[in-house]
Amino acid sequence: MLEKCKQKVWQANLDLVRHHLVLFTWGNVSGRDEKSGYIVIKPSGVPYETLQWEDMVVVSPDGEVVEGRYRPSSDTPTHLELYRMHVGIGGVVHTHSTYATAYAQAGEGIPAYGTTHADYFHGEIPCTRSLTEQEVRDAYERNTGAVIRERFTGLDPLAVPACLVRHHGVFAWGKDCAEAVYHAAVVEEVAKMSAFTRLIRRDAEQVEPYVLEKHYQRKHGANAYYGQK
Amino acid sequence: MLEKCKQKVWQANLDLVRHHLVLFTWGNVSGRDEKSGYIVIKPSGVPYETLQWEDMVVVSPDGEVVEGRYRPSSDTPTHLELYRMHVGIGGVVHTHSTYATAYAQAGEGIPAYGTTHADYFHGEIPCTRSLTEQEVRDAYERNTGAVIRERFTGLDPLAVPACLVRHHGVFAWGKDCAEAVYHAAVVEEVAKMSAFTRLIRRDAEQVEPYVLEKHYQRKHGANAYYGQK
Amino acid sequence: MLEKCKQKVWQANLDLVRHHLVLFTWGNVSGRDEKSGYIVIKPSGVPYETLQWEDMVVVSPDGEVVEGRYRPSSDTPTHLELYRMHVGIGGVVHTHSTYATAYAQAGEGIPAYGTTHADYFHGEIPCTRSLTEQEVRDAYERNTGAVIRERFTGLDPLAVPACLVRHHGVFAWGKDCAEAVYHAAVVEEVAKMSAFTRLIRRDAEQVEPYVLEKHYQRKHGANAYYGQK
Amino acid sequence: MLEKCKQKVWQANLDLVRHHLVLFTWGNVSGRDEKSGYIVIKPSGVPYETLQWEDMVVVSPDGEVVEGRYRPSSDTPTHLELYRMHVGIGGVVHTHSTYATAYAQAGEGIPAYGTTHADYFHGEIPCTRSLTEQEVRDAYERNTGAVIRERFTGLDPLAVPACLVRHHGVFAWGKDCAEAVYHAAVVEEVAKMSAFTRLIRRDAEQVEPYVLEKHYQRKHGANAYYGQK
Repeated sequence: MLEKCKQKVWQANLDLVRHHLVLFTWGNVSGRDEKSGYIVIKPSGVPYETLQWEDMVVVSPDGEVVEGRYRPSSDTPTHLELYRMHVGIGGVVHTHSTYATAYAQAGEGIPAYGTTHADYFHGEIPCTRSLTEQEVRDAYERNTGAVIRERFTGLDPLAVPACLVRHHGVFAWGKDCAEAVYHAAVVEEVAKMSAFTRLIRRDAEQVEPYVLEKHYQRKHGANAYYGQK
Repeated sequence: MLEKCKQKVWQANLDLVRHHLVLFTWGNVSGRDEKSGYIVIKPSGVPYETLQWEDMVVVSPDGEVVEGRYRPSSDTPTHLELYRMHVGIGGVVHTHSTYATAYAQAGEGIPAYGTTHADYFHGEIPCTRSLTEQEVRDAYERNTGAVIRERFTGLDPLAVPACLVRHHGVFAWGKDCAEAVYHAAVVEEVAKMSAFTRLIRRDAEQVEPYVLEKHYQRKHGANAYYGQK
Repeated sequence: MLEKCKQKVWQANLDLVRHHLVLFTWGNVSGRDEKSGYIVIKPSGVPYETLQWEDMVVVSPDGEVVEGRYRPSSDTPTHLELYRMHVGIGGVVHTHSTYATAYAQAGEGIPAYGTTHADYFHGEIPCTRSLTEQEVRDAYERNTGAVIRERFTGLDPLAVPACLVRHHGVFAWGKDCAEAVYHAAVVEEVAKMSAFTRLIRRDAEQVEPYVLEKHYQRKHGANAYYGQK
Repeated sequence: MLEKCKQKVWQANLDLVRHHLVLFTWGNVSGRDEKSGYIVIKPSGVPYETLQWEDMVVVSPDGEVVEGRYRPSSDTPTHLELYRMHVGIGGVVHTHSTYATAYAQAGEGIPAYGTTHADYFHGEIPCTRSLTEQEVRDAYERNTGAVIRERFTGLDPLAVPACLVRHHGVFAWGKDCAEAVYHAAVVEEVAKMSAFTRLIRRDAEQVEPYVLEKHYQRKHGANAYYGQK
């Protein structure tokens, strides 16, 4: 079932490797099948080298395995929580990409230092608080999604399509799994630029709000004029 | 029309990828056809993987599309402004290359710390001021070119063939589009060296003026003796 | 003799190159043959490009060469000392990988800043003290193993399968030579993340103990649920 | 003439590219033909992509071109000065490799922070003073060699086979051109390790003198036991 969706999610998982966003099995991508509402996700701990599109696992929005000979990614409950955050989210990615994870480990969001950032993120890429001991014990992966949702109170997840989880790594999303991977790659690149911006000037200022607005809107606003019609 | 020029500009755009100066579609190269004075430029937002030389867009010096089934790069008005800066500029490049963009985000020019820099740039690679809200609202891309021109008051654009735009990225130029790409690659490498120079010694001194002069002149002066006759 | 073991150890040595953990001949892998108890190790100073599986050297646990036309790695006595540290160690790796060696040169262990680290290491990756002049003069390579063993007093080598040697580099181990290489690759990646974590925030906090525990146990504990059954 | 020597020098020049030590034409290798005493060197400014072994230029120890349709590297007088420094030098390399050049730009030698360094360099890789204006004006390239020789007063160039030139880059040497390239690659790697060592701990201590001695001697001393007999 859902062959096309499985192939897209499988390809998106391989794209994580191509963009140097994962080492070994440290990442996963899922995508939502629009018609059925089911989520297709990478199996847990299977190496990318041997991964076949038929290995993708189908789960219901509540996390029941609908189809698949493998266990789904152990991060599945986080993915599901993120799909619940906004109906416009059709793909979710998790990575431990180097520079973005360094920001997560520092417990800081990635500041909007420039237009590279503003072209995709309408402001800082935020970082969650740490989970409490209780939250870790009870339902760790679901609560990882919950602290992201908590962090997005008052933020539009479609305008800032990624979040760092403190001491952990990156979650990114998009309208489908391919766009989610694209956003994960942007997060890593702006994290790298941002780290070196700090090396050059510890107290660098963020981009002016009106430049942020201009760049975000020329790509994403009602009057966007970047790219082709 | 302008087949040869389109092929050179197309090749120069692919060279941005080869030199690891762009991620996704974050960069563009243009070249001026000497005879017609028309500018040939990359179409906006088209992936490098599928880019064909026939896709290049021809615009007049005033920005009118002369030929092309695609929209030209959204940065076209910046390119045109730069061609107007000096008649010797025959190619222009825009990138968000990592280390140079970190300098732009820090709002600092790249200091001339050594002879690698001096071989191509006769002094610091400067960084513009931020655009005002008015300048962003009115004609953002053209004004991006205008603040570069303002920054070059009293500087020779042929002796310092690149500029950082604050909170944005790199613009580089040359006698043709290939040389512009070459200069963009040098900007990135000297930015990287320079960032690590600061890591090693925060208060590193710039290269002595007479060494700067020597290296620049042995490659570019009337009595240049680097390379073959 | 021990053809299969030699092939596995040879492959593991080549994997060091594939994971960019060695330059030239700066690294070595050994594996223990379970049946005979012999150790199979890379010959000293032979380039990886020309290394054949038949070149692997067989030594006894006391370091006598049992078979091999080449001298074993000069680090053999360190490897043997590490096998003696715990019966569960079936493979040992030595590298001078860049970021981990920078930590060793700084004389600091790699702090557990995040879950990437916690997924494999149950706490800080420790760094030994310097060897004394006497220890260097007497039996340098064996004493290198001895200071690692001394550093692991009170630590479980299977729960923290790597150690930095001050002013030197990395030793990592695992249940077999393939797992030892895997651990060496993780050490390098968490060292890189950790260095940039410090660049971003000098006083970053380590991961909460209960998150460390959770991540370590979900992969390695009795109730591990990461990966496939 | 000197076909074999030209082929070795040509190969060594290509190895600079393979080891990522040069961008564009920013580097050169020469080798001395033992029998004739002539020096074979890369032509100036010729791209590595199109370089043929027949393009190598033969010069006398005084810098007269003996054979070659191209001009020799503009750095030839520096190379010749280095051959005059010690009769044991049979190959010379010049690079602007990133991290080592950052040290040169900072005006600091590369400290011996660990055994990776000690395996090849018997102490700090020194950095010269700046050339005076007079020295630059009179015979810049020869004086570049002269300040290296001045810096090596009291040092053994065979025990420390490389030097940084302030605000410039790296010169390395060896018994032949292949070893010189090998040393240039080691300089870059230890410079990178060393920069990150400082990032981790600004006041890191250098390796103990007796460990430095041990590592250097086990590879290079009369009783060396690293590698094969």
